[in-house]
Amino acid sequence: MTRDQRISPEDLDTLCFTILTAGGVDVSQAREVARNLVWSEFVGRENFGLLRLPVYLKRVAEGGLSCPCTPTFMDVSESASLLDADNGFGQYAAGLAMDKAISLARVSGIGTVGVRNSNFFGTGAYFVHQAARDGMIAMVMSNSFPKVTAHGGVAPVLGTNPLAFGAPRKNGESLMFDMATSALAGSTVRQHVANGKPLPEGMAIDADGAAITDPSRVEEGSLLPAAGAKGYGLSLLVEILAGVLTGAGVSGDVASMYKDVSRPGLNGHFMIALDVTRFMSMEHFQDRLEGLVAVLKASNPNSEVLFPGEIRWRNHKVNSDLGIALGDATRTAVETVCEWTGVECPWSPVLQTA
Amino acid sequence: MTRDQRISPEDLDTLCFTILTAGGVDVSQAREVARNLVWSEFVGRENFGLLRLPVYLKRVAEGGLSCPCTPTFMDVSESASLLDADNGFGQYAAGLAMDKAISLARVSGIGTVGVRNSNFFGTGAYFVHQAARDGMIAMVMSNSFPKVTAHGGVAPVLGTNPLAFGAPRKNGESLMFDMATSALAGSTVRQHVANGKPLPEGMAIDADGAAITDPSRVEEGSLLPAAGAKGYGLSLLVEILAGVLTGAGVSGDVASMYKDVSRPGLNGHFMIALDVTRFMSMEHFQDRLEGLVAVLKASNPNSEVLFPGEIRWRNHKVNSDLGIALGDATRTAVETVCEWTGVECPWSPVLQTA
Repeated sequence: MTRDQRISPEDLDTLCFTILTAGGVDVSQAREVARNLVWSEFVGRENFGLLRLPVYLKRVAEGGLSCPCTPTFMDVSESASLLDADNGFGQYAAGLAMDKAISLARVSGIGTVGVRNSNFFGTGAYFVHQAARDGMIAMVMSNSFPKVTAHGGVAPVLGTNPLAFGAPRKNGESLMFDMATSALAGSTVRQHVANGKPLPEGMAIDADGAAITDPSRVEEGSLLPAAGAKGYGLSLLVEILAGVLTGAGVSGDVASMYKDVSRPGLNGHFMIALDVTRFMSMEHFQDRLEGLVAVLKASNPNSEVLFPGEIRWRNHKVNSDLGIALGDATRTAVETVCEWTGVECPWSPVLQTA
Repeated sequence: MTRDQRISPEDLDTLCFTILTAGGVDVSQAREVARNLVWSEFVGRENFGLLRLPVYLKRVAEGGLSCPCTPTFMDVSESASLLDADNGFGQYAAGLAMDKAISLARVSGIGTVGVRNSNFFGTGAYFVHQAARDGMIAMVMSNSFPKVTAHGGVAPVLGTNPLAFGAPRKNGESLMFDMATSALAGSTVRQHVANGKPLPEGMAIDADGAAITDPSRVEEGSLLPAAGAKGYGLSLLVEILAGVLTGAGVSGDVASMYKDVSRPGLNGHFMIALDVTRFMSMEHFQDRLEGLVAVLKASNPNSEVLFPGEIRWRNHKVNSDLGIALGDATRTAVETVCEWTGVECPWSPVLQTA
């Protein structure tokens, strides 16, 4: 194939799995992580896809990610459990945790699982969709390495602490909402750096509280919480549930994925799954939800109103029909890890400047 | 007493209870609503305090609030329940729902209660503190009358849909976070109208999408969601859990407290309580939480960093020590309802222009 050709999801999954295992990842984790990264490409979230393979493999090599790992559940009750992820991939641990939350919710209407000793888990949308496919409404959150101020603070003390929510729609395309509680996601900052685009004011500040608009300078300072006190409160909700309550790292205990490649992330996650059918029939719930969606869609006569996840499912459809189009940065990342691991790259890599 | 004298919490509770019962509220609801409104005054949330007595009594007289009411629980499992509030006060229904969520969480680690056929419930902070006093982390949300656009919409289709979160602190002053998912709360708009203060841009728009900065014109248009797509997604989280899943009113089904005084609100609420001690010892949790609070407090060398609820507890301390200082608008509201109900006002009312 040529470098810019679309690739079938099956071939991409095989490539990703092969790279991961060649890079030292055990089969159980590699299978789940590949599925997660390919899904992220499917729905057009390049930042949570194969783009991060180089840093993942660096962390595996340096001990920042344990392969294999032995995740252990400690059941709290028939509706709650804690998972020690044993420093495995966050995508793997969070997938196991959501499976468990779904099982608990089947038994008791609601299931909740807290995860500690984990790592960056990618996009929370993956796990809320995992739940929605099984008829569950879900909330998913994770704390992360501190790069965001408190409201009124100037030092980075909180992660971008994402919060995701999902619900099962009639057509199988779940409503998926996934937000950083900071004014910008870390991945968006990296996009701005890559594109050379300045940041608007109100996104990041330096240690004196002065605005940073050069995205490459964000690392010297901090991101601001989204909408001031609101994002700050939401970030604390995530930090307390995913970090404090689970026994995971809190604030500065959580390691940077990129800067501390040999240090376990100590991230914590928190999952809640609700079995819709314990509250009302699925048909009734979905009719009510589609009624709400119809109201949203009709709320602007002059331009389209989207609901959370809609763009993702359009990408999914195009990528299902035509094959997945990898972004340029992702292709380079794949070429890099192919070279590291000796896996044959399915296209002719472009020459890299060393 | 004089009109501007501070009043003891006991006297204020008695006054509030007496006014409510004289205005047709049954004893069970009056007791709980008085407690809720006085607490709101205690912590300095005038907008959720006695200020709203006139509209509450109008709704009681016109059938928009049922007195008495017969709330009925339908248990889903040992961790989940649904409450039909029978059109009672939201403060009453939500208090019962949180009590139930706490009991369920004692049994199974997590308790969740959905409420339908309810009304405006005041501040969610009251209920998260109710849970925190019992050693619980809690989330509380409610849908409300649509006055907020979808992200990208121009018509009001969602309520200000508040979301509250709380956790028990070592000193008994729980962390309390309570946000409207809209750029502004309805009560803040009314404050701006009262003070004649214009709104900044980005808070409200008219039906053509043009900014509204005159707060008295907000009713002609819509509020915007907080932080665009983020507030929109959070508002949908609230609408789906508190509205769609509970069987409550959704979007335009929910009545305006002020404009539809004879129409049941059909508001829905959703409560989640987590028993901290099922996850780790309370001492360990609170040490970890205080560690986080210390990091937040130390994150600006030049000015104070607050955590959610801190101002509320300062107000509580002052009002406990000195008695509660009612705001001028609240005094007028109390004078009005005293006149309606024949209850003796504890101070000499100022002359009202008819």
